[in-house]
Amino acid sequence: MVRYAKRMEQLTNSDIGELLKLIAQPDIISFAGGLPAAELFPVEQLRQACNHVMDEVGRVACQYSATEGLPALREKIAQRMKEKNNIETDAEHILITSGSQQGLDFSGRVFLDKGDVVLMESPSYLGAINAFKACEPTFLEVPTDDDGMVMEELEKILQTTENVKMIYVIPDFQNPTGRTWSLERRQKFMEIINRYEIPVIEDNPYGELRFENEDMPALKSLDTKGLVVFLGTFSKILVPGYRLGWVCASDEILSMYNFIKQGADLQTPTVTQLEVNAYIDLFDLDAHVDKIRELYRHRRDVMMQAMEEYFPKEAKFTHPDGGLFTWVELPDYINTRDMALQCLQKKVAYVPGGSFFPNGGQENCFRMNYSCMPDEKIVEGVKAIAEVIRANLK
Amino acid sequence: MVRYAKRMEQLTNSDIGELLKLIAQPDIISFAGGLPAAELFPVEQLRQACNHVMDEVGRVACQYSATEGLPALREKIAQRMKEKNNIETDAEHILITSGSQQGLDFSGRVFLDKGDVVLMESPSYLGAINAFKACEPTFLEVPTDDDGMVMEELEKILQTTENVKMIYVIPDFQNPTGRTWSLERRQKFMEIINRYEIPVIEDNPYGELRFENEDMPALKSLDTKGLVVFLGTFSKILVPGYRLGWVCASDEILSMYNFIKQGADLQTPTVTQLEVNAYIDLFDLDAHVDKIRELYRHRRDVMMQAMEEYFPKEAKFTHPDGGLFTWVELPDYINTRDMALQCLQKKVAYVPGGSFFPNGGQENCFRMNYSCMPDEKIVEGVKAIAEVIRANLK
Repeated sequence: MVRYAKRMEQLTNSDIGELLKLIAQPDIISFAGGLPAAELFPVEQLRQACNHVMDEVGRVACQYSATEGLPALREKIAQRMKEKNNIETDAEHILITSGSQQGLDFSGRVFLDKGDVVLMESPSYLGAINAFKACEPTFLEVPTDDDGMVMEELEKILQTTENVKMIYVIPDFQNPTGRTWSLERRQKFMEIINRYEIPVIEDNPYGELRFENEDMPALKSLDTKGLVVFLGTFSKILVPGYRLGWVCASDEILSMYNFIKQGADLQTPTVTQLEVNAYIDLFDLDAHVDKIRELYRHRRDVMMQAMEEYFPKEAKFTHPDGGLFTWVELPDYINTRDMALQCLQKKVAYVPGGSFFPNGGQENCFRMNYSCMPDEKIVEGVKAIAEVIRANLK
Repeated sequence: MVRYAKRMEQLTNSDIGELLKLIAQPDIISFAGGLPAAELFPVEQLRQACNHVMDEVGRVACQYSATEGLPALREKIAQRMKEKNNIETDAEHILITSGSQQGLDFSGRVFLDKGDVVLMESPSYLGAINAFKACEPTFLEVPTDDDGMVMEELEKILQTTENVKMIYVIPDFQNPTGRTWSLERRQKFMEIINRYEIPVIEDNPYGELRFENEDMPALKSLDTKGLVVFLGTFSKILVPGYRLGWVCASDEILSMYNFIKQGADLQTPTVTQLEVNAYIDLFDLDAHVDKIRELYRHRRDVMMQAMEEYFPKEAKFTHPDGGLFTWVELPDYINTRDMALQCLQKKVAYVPGGSFFPNGGQENCFRMNYSCMPDEKIVEGVKAIAEVIRANLK
């Protein structure tokens, strides 16, 4: 009889996989995925980048290459982290991964034995929860508010919990809430972390997509003890279909990620690394990110206005300063999984909030994405959801 | 203090990673890696395939796509497995992976808890050993001879060992030995497997690269109980730099691989899948494989002739009917790790054999690759190694 590893019991099908299937139906107004706006993809420029690579280094692009990634691309990433995040680093401290999802998976494998404790914001990114589950850890949720993780609660947990092996956070435009940590919280967090010396996974896929107000310093930029592992990605600032992300960490920690990478898939594809490297050489990535930021800000505005106009006052939602998501909280008695099916009948989709709590138990929230739908669909979809919410109010 | 997961203790740097770095030096005659011959890469055709994709479905190529992979490519793979391996399957039973190394990593994660037993040929592929090590299993080595795994030994182990969770094998042109299992062994193996109902990972990266004699049936083609997981790849029949492989398995087992894939990296890049799919539509992959087969057969001949001419009679080596490797066995008192350093001084590299034994202890062998060096380099390199061997003989 075929017997599977015990970790498989924890890994039921993730909502993301199922939802990507639903989104594939063209007639759905989907606020569910985290899909970038396809109309902004620089297809023609990427085609030119590909031709450039094939003309100049075609045989290299087709061959195996080093596990840690292409030196020229790692150099550009380090440079970008310096410019955008004020992080002092270099190519030697970057590992190219297959999207930042792979960085999440590796984080679990580097730090977590079965039963070890991982701390996360409550709620947190469901893809991270799923990745960590494969290591069978114990999840502890740290309460959050509009300014991010609540430091008194974090401290309380650290004082009373053994075997906390890592803390996973998304300080900028968090997935799923769209919230951003205040400067004060960031400084307090690093003070606590330095005291307890616990590795931190700082997931930063949306940091460059700020619509207003001042940039906040990345935790990694405040990291004096080499405890912060920074995960970045090209998925949200260029294209997700090339699956290019990176890990930036101190020497010893990064070497652990490299060991895992070798066994996991040897290397990220040579060809996609060379093409994105060529794209950055030939074109203006910053100007491209400006366009994305402009469009998402506009769509955020459209969604916020529609929600303010159509949602009943019982629905509370966040006002993100950047990123792709807003988070809606309904009265306790409404189950947003059940409501999602009612919405799908009206051809509108969101992600029920329960999946974002690693230990479950909160079913009255949902996540809305505003990056990939045109204005009129956003308004139409929000109206439809508003009707369903009203029908569920007592 | 940063504490890592216990699995990290087992994962010291793999020889493959270090060796790929050595190979990167252009002045080394390298028989070490498993690099395909770069001069055969169809660079111009892949460029056209890329342009085709960007013209026809550019936005799709840049976007997220389904975890299991592109339906059209999975369809082509299923068709190819039918034609080349006589395996009855369809797109629904294929998962696209990031190279077959990822299939190895997933195999460990699907089946192995800490301490579980995995059986492997002795010796076996070091990349598989490294991948499985991340799950902290117990390795048991099954003796092999020129006809493959020795069935009496396998049966003995299965009779006396609890907790055997999977068996990993490479029946065609094995890595590292170049040996191919006889038909009789294959049939006997399936008879034993069916009796014990143990999942089998059949790794088949080289099956299409047969130089002479009849094709042997894949274990998967003899699999009546859905126990065999077949791993395939485009790395050796097209290009490795796109990192495209696949897993073919029965419904329930494949669904487990899909769960792991979602958490591991969401999906293999959309763009590379579309490009290889377009390449197969637009060009003749079979004709391309013919060219590879022709060149590797020639290089195998050149290496065999050189080894017969220059190696001392104390060096025994295999005569592969296909694939990329031959395996050299020296007298017990010679340590091929030490000898490798002497060879590197003469600018020649191979992989010392010790790494291919999961439990170590056999240091008198080494693996030679003949796919990526021109004739004169093969002869020159074999001569240099022959000199070093002679200097080490007592």
